[in-house]
Amino acid sequence: MAEPLRRRLPLLSLLLLAAGGLRAAERSGGSSSSAMEELATEKEAEESHRQDSVSLLTFILLLTLTILTIWLFKHRRVRFLHETGLAMIYGLIVGVILRYGTPSTSGHDKPFSCSQEDRPFTTLLVNVSGKFFEYTLKGEISPGKIHNVEQNDMLRKVTFDPEVFFNILLPPIIFHAGYSLKKRHFFRNLGSILAYAFLGTAVSCFIIGNLMYGVVKLMKLVGQLSDKFYYTDCLLFGAIISATDPVTVLAIFNELHADVDLYALLFGESVLNDAVAIVLSSSIVAYQPTGENTHAFDAAAFFKSVGVFLGIFSGSFMMGAVTGVVTALVTKFTKLHCFPLLETALFFLMSWSTFLLAEACGFTGVVAVLFCGITQAHYTYNNLSVESRSRTKQLFEVLHFLAENFIFSYMGLALFTFQKHIFSPVFIIGAFVAIFLGRAAHIYPLSFLLNLGRRHKISWSFQHMMMFSGLRGAMAFALAIRDTATYSHQMMFSTTLLIVFFTVWIVGGGTTPMLSWLNIRVGVDPDQDPPPTNDSFQVLQGDGQDSARRNRTKQESAWLFRLWYSFDHNYLKPILTHSGPPLTTTLPSWCGLIARCLTSPQVYDNQEQLREEDSDFILNDGDLTVTYGDTTITANGSSGPHTATTNLDSRRTKSSSEEALERDLGAADHEVTSRGTRLVFPLEYNA
Amino acid sequence: MAEPLRRRLPLLSLLLLAAGGLRAAERSGGSSSSAMEELATEKEAEESHRQDSVSLLTFILLLTLTILTIWLFKHRRVRFLHETGLAMIYGLIVGVILRYGTPSTSGHDKPFSCSQEDRPFTTLLVNVSGKFFEYTLKGEISPGKIHNVEQNDMLRKVTFDPEVFFNILLPPIIFHAGYSLKKRHFFRNLGSILAYAFLGTAVSCFIIGNLMYGVVKLMKLVGQLSDKFYYTDCLLFGAIISATDPVTVLAIFNELHADVDLYALLFGESVLNDAVAIVLSSSIVAYQPTGENTHAFDAAAFFKSVGVFLGIFSGSFMMGAVTGVVTALVTKFTKLHCFPLLETALFFLMSWSTFLLAEACGFTGVVAVLFCGITQAHYTYNNLSVESRSRTKQLFEVLHFLAENFIFSYMGLALFTFQKHIFSPVFIIGAFVAIFLGRAAHIYPLSFLLNLGRRHKISWSFQHMMMFSGLRGAMAFALAIRDTATYSHQMMFSTTLLIVFFTVWIVGGGTTPMLSWLNIRVGVDPDQDPPPTNDSFQVLQGDGQDSARRNRTKQESAWLFRLWYSFDHNYLKPILTHSGPPLTTTLPSWCGLIARCLTSPQVYDNQEQLREEDSDFILNDGDLTVTYGDTTITANGSSGPHTATTNLDSRRTKSSSEEALERDLGAADHEVTSRGTRLVFPLEYNA
Repeated sequence: MAEPLRRRLPLLSLLLLAAGGLRAAERSGGSSSSAMEELATEKEAEESHRQDSVSLLTFILLLTLTILTIWLFKHRRVRFLHETGLAMIYGLIVGVILRYGTPSTSGHDKPFSCSQEDRPFTTLLVNVSGKFFEYTLKGEISPGKIHNVEQNDMLRKVTFDPEVFFNILLPPIIFHAGYSLKKRHFFRNLGSILAYAFLGTAVSCFIIGNLMYGVVKLMKLVGQLSDKFYYTDCLLFGAIISATDPVTVLAIFNELHADVDLYALLFGESVLNDAVAIVLSSSIVAYQPTGENTHAFDAAAFFKSVGVFLGIFSGSFMMGAVTGVVTALVTKFTKLHCFPLLETALFFLMSWSTFLLAEACGFTGVVAVLFCGITQAHYTYNNLSVESRSRTKQLFEVLHFLAENFIFSYMGLALFTFQKHIFSPVFIIGAFVAIFLGRAAHIYPLSFLLNLGRRHKISWSFQHMMMFSGLRGAMAFALAIRDTATYSHQMMFSTTLLIVFFTVWIVGGGTTPMLSWLNIRVGVDPDQDPPPTNDSFQVLQGDGQDSARRNRTKQESAWLFRLWYSFDHNYLKPILTHSGPPLTTTLPSWCGLIARCLTSPQVYDNQEQLREEDSDFILNDGDLTVTYGDTTITANGSSGPHTATTNLDSRRTKSSSEEALERDLGAADHEVTSRGTRLVFPLEYNA
Repeated sequence: MAEPLRRRLPLLSLLLLAAGGLRAAERSGGSSSSAMEELATEKEAEESHRQDSVSLLTFILLLTLTILTIWLFKHRRVRFLHETGLAMIYGLIVGVILRYGTPSTSGHDKPFSCSQEDRPFTTLLVNVSGKFFEYTLKGEISPGKIHNVEQNDMLRKVTFDPEVFFNILLPPIIFHAGYSLKKRHFFRNLGSILAYAFLGTAVSCFIIGNLMYGVVKLMKLVGQLSDKFYYTDCLLFGAIISATDPVTVLAIFNELHADVDLYALLFGESVLNDAVAIVLSSSIVAYQPTGENTHAFDAAAFFKSVGVFLGIFSGSFMMGAVTGVVTALVTKFTKLHCFPLLETALFFLMSWSTFLLAEACGFTGVVAVLFCGITQAHYTYNNLSVESRSRTKQLFEVLHFLAENFIFSYMGLALFTFQKHIFSPVFIIGAFVAIFLGRAAHIYPLSFLLNLGRRHKISWSFQHMMMFSGLRGAMAFALAIRDTATYSHQMMFSTTLLIVFFTVWIVGGGTTPMLSWLNIRVGVDPDQDPPPTNDSFQVLQGDGQDSARRNRTKQESAWLFRLWYSFDHNYLKPILTHSGPPLTTTLPSWCGLIARCLTSPQVYDNQEQLREEDSDFILNDGDLTVTYGDTTITANGSSGPHTATTNLDSRRTKSSSEEALERDLGAADHEVTSRGTRLVFPLEYNA
């Protein structure tokens, strides 16, 4: 029952240049025979190439139009419609024109049939009046659909291979997300983010899957279901639709400088749950019980699926982390930062190779790219030259912008040009109810549990905002369109499309009113702590209150995070970057030689510049309260005046990493006060 | 006799994501029949996807290695080997490993044959035990080669579709070349550059073609030719090999700050002759005499070819110029520069659309992209925000760097992995002699003719250096690999490859010795005029010598250039950018309304900032002696103190554009002296 759509690379092949690939028709100066025939083939190929160019041009003009309208909106400070919503609207309009404005031509060649005995070959040689032609397998066609092949040439032209999304468009989006994680607030809320992303997505997937199975049963009862719809399909739908993408909400947060912790929670959750949703859906697809009864519960297959989930996730994570670490090492131990072009190119290639490496090893490239992005931001970024920092950020920003708007405008287009939509009102209404309940069932209980352990409680208004921000976007779409071969998948795809439209337009447009209705404060500088003028904050300053503050900070950090922090701070950062205490102080003394080797000689050369950069970096991106202690090595191998004490301390007390952390924090306090910065701390987090 | 190679998109399809496109195998939750069979197909597809990832990974690692070695070379100031030469060496090594290190497996499926009567369909439906599979036409296979299909899977994997070069890799290279043309020196030498690029390439193509025809005749005599080799093939070879690409020489020039005029001549020639060579080869291919005797001279076909040349060239030029102008207008009349991301994205999309537009209209995308780049640099660049300027430059710099090194490493690889090499010693030696003579026959006579009209004579040492710098690179390779279907084309491809290797390694490595041997001065700041300390230059300063200087400047500029300059300065620049005299002064008075509309309101807002930027731009990029008169409009609509006079003057005397130019130059002198800059002018250009 596989559809031909998934095997077709029309616009895609063009997208990347096959634009012309077809044209390479027989141009040989003097072929022996039938020159006229070749000429005809060539003309046809050229025509096809021209059509490909036109359809790609359509998308580019669409994006151009979107950009200009966005500019107009931003210029006039219109906030009810985000660029992605706009891209969808333009996509819809072009889709309508293509659907109803172009003649429904059928393909130029009538398909030819000949019978074979065995299973299909991937390559076919056909003898046409003495000449041999090579054909490749595109895919199977269900017998009923044979006459629909090449149904509408124009619509077929603008239909992408679904894998384009996974292999071209998603990677830059996901990498950018990882690379631009606001690390300070992200790491401060790491525990909650991980809980929402992993537990939350699993809960949401399971609840939505079960609710939808009920809906499907209901539909079967009332006779609204014309084909099979299994429990695994429902679970797959749950996984697909659990990938939230609050792009519009986050854009508004960014613009209004809304609360940074809420931003971190939402952004972190959406970034990580994309990864979880991909792997989850792969695992559900991998759930194939043995034997004939393929849709009953099978414990062996279930555990195999769980194993697949864990295997793919950890494997992809490893791939991403390893390439990130390798890049960090390369940029640390070469003087590549003198040549920003080389550095940027290397950064780009290494990040891309993560994707290929993961795919080559059978893991998920998109997930690997995400963790690679986080690693690159955490380590490599510190080693880059100032120019490369902005270059890499800008490069991926542009790629991300283009890819995201492309996907959203394609979504608009797909509503009309996709030729196998199945809109079932019952299923759609059921899906809306299910995603609402699914999100509620993970946000509120999880927040309650998390609040038991958190010092900064996640307030009710934050919980409502998170509930409200459960938009679906590019990832849900890419997962849904990946497989539209069966009846159930087609229905899921159509429903997903509607959910994306609804949430992006309605929820996106309602963000600003919602923010003010929930009394969530805006106008916070994301790189600063809450402003001292706010009533709900009390200024804590001076050495006298240091100990109280230190204790609080200690309580704040969960043990897992403290463990990670001290490991990262004492070993990883010094090895991978130019910051942190020298390894000679943190490693046991018998590692002296290795420690001296790994503590790069460049540190001594670049100390002045680096001290400047590094403290900037920490101020802007590091977690002020916990990563402030990162020190830069001075020319003579010792550290700066304030931090020198810290290093000595931490060497003395390194058996207890907690104490070291505490001392680091103490040193940070010293540094902060010595700079004359007035630091404030929330006593009650929300009004 | 068409080979299958040209129709294959293996790595390509992968390159851009089909990476995975094949994997979209039958994953439907519950297909009705033969699940095991589907599983097998899926496994196979997944395996193929994995192999694709691995081969692309090979290229990425190759590039990474190249980058690291380049860094080492730059770090150690090694100049005898350029990065492109290095990329070729690494490519060669990997090619050898792939060729001799991997088992020569044949394809996993034996091709299946069945006979058809008519000409081949592009789509084929095959009935395999009741299920239908769709196949697409890949290309014709010569009967002798049937057993070679899928000869070596690994070699096939790393073989790109030749159109990848034209549609993916060349456009960023060529666009970057256009976008980074050093305008000041480029326009100063425009006449000579055009002469070298058009006349020179045509002469070179014709001479090489005829010499090679002689070589071919000789080979036929001594029995070294085993298949047909027509006169048109020889001419095509002439066109292919006439595209110079002195990338290594220019890199060294840049590094050593060699003479800027020589740089402009070489760079300008190489950029434009790429365009000429592409269009020339298309025209030669289009030379198809009617009737049976297809390789005799046919006047009608010849003139048709000339028409094709002119049509494609001017069409592509128009496309590029038009999209450039549209981008300039959009960036001028919107406040897009407040949002650098949007601006950069728009710039990128518009530049890409040039390519597609030209291809859709049947012109040559690469040529259009070149002229688009030049237009963007000349107009749009002025309207961009400071951030977008560096963003766009850096974006295309990275793309260009990656694409160029990719092509060169692929060249190294192709020497071993391309499976249809024909190395004919006689042909190769003949080709080397021919390209030497072809270059000599256009450089020396043309320089002689140009020197008759030039004030700054092109000295003998410059001529020798240009002769020496006739390297062949990416463009020659891309043109040669585009069609390797016939015996003659295969021989041409192999020879081109060797010529590229030889010139890049030997000539590239010999640049520094050659520069010192020819006594060409280095260490010149490319953005400044020759230094006043040079003996061969006499300082001209003060108002007393203004008139003498003005006359000289007037003599220097050819009438064509003066005409263009005054049109550009009086109309195009004011319309398309924020600089130049206001249109209200240059247009006839009855155009007052239009003039006021086109003279953008932003000019009044941004005057302070723009005056700064604009004069910077002129100082750095404009031709100091002729474009200095560009003025920026001040807030009240009039111009600055010095230039106001100029504008009034030019209004009074606008009937004579030459006089206006002269006065502009006068004003420029004023401005220069009022800034206290000491300007120098070469009396004799070379020592």
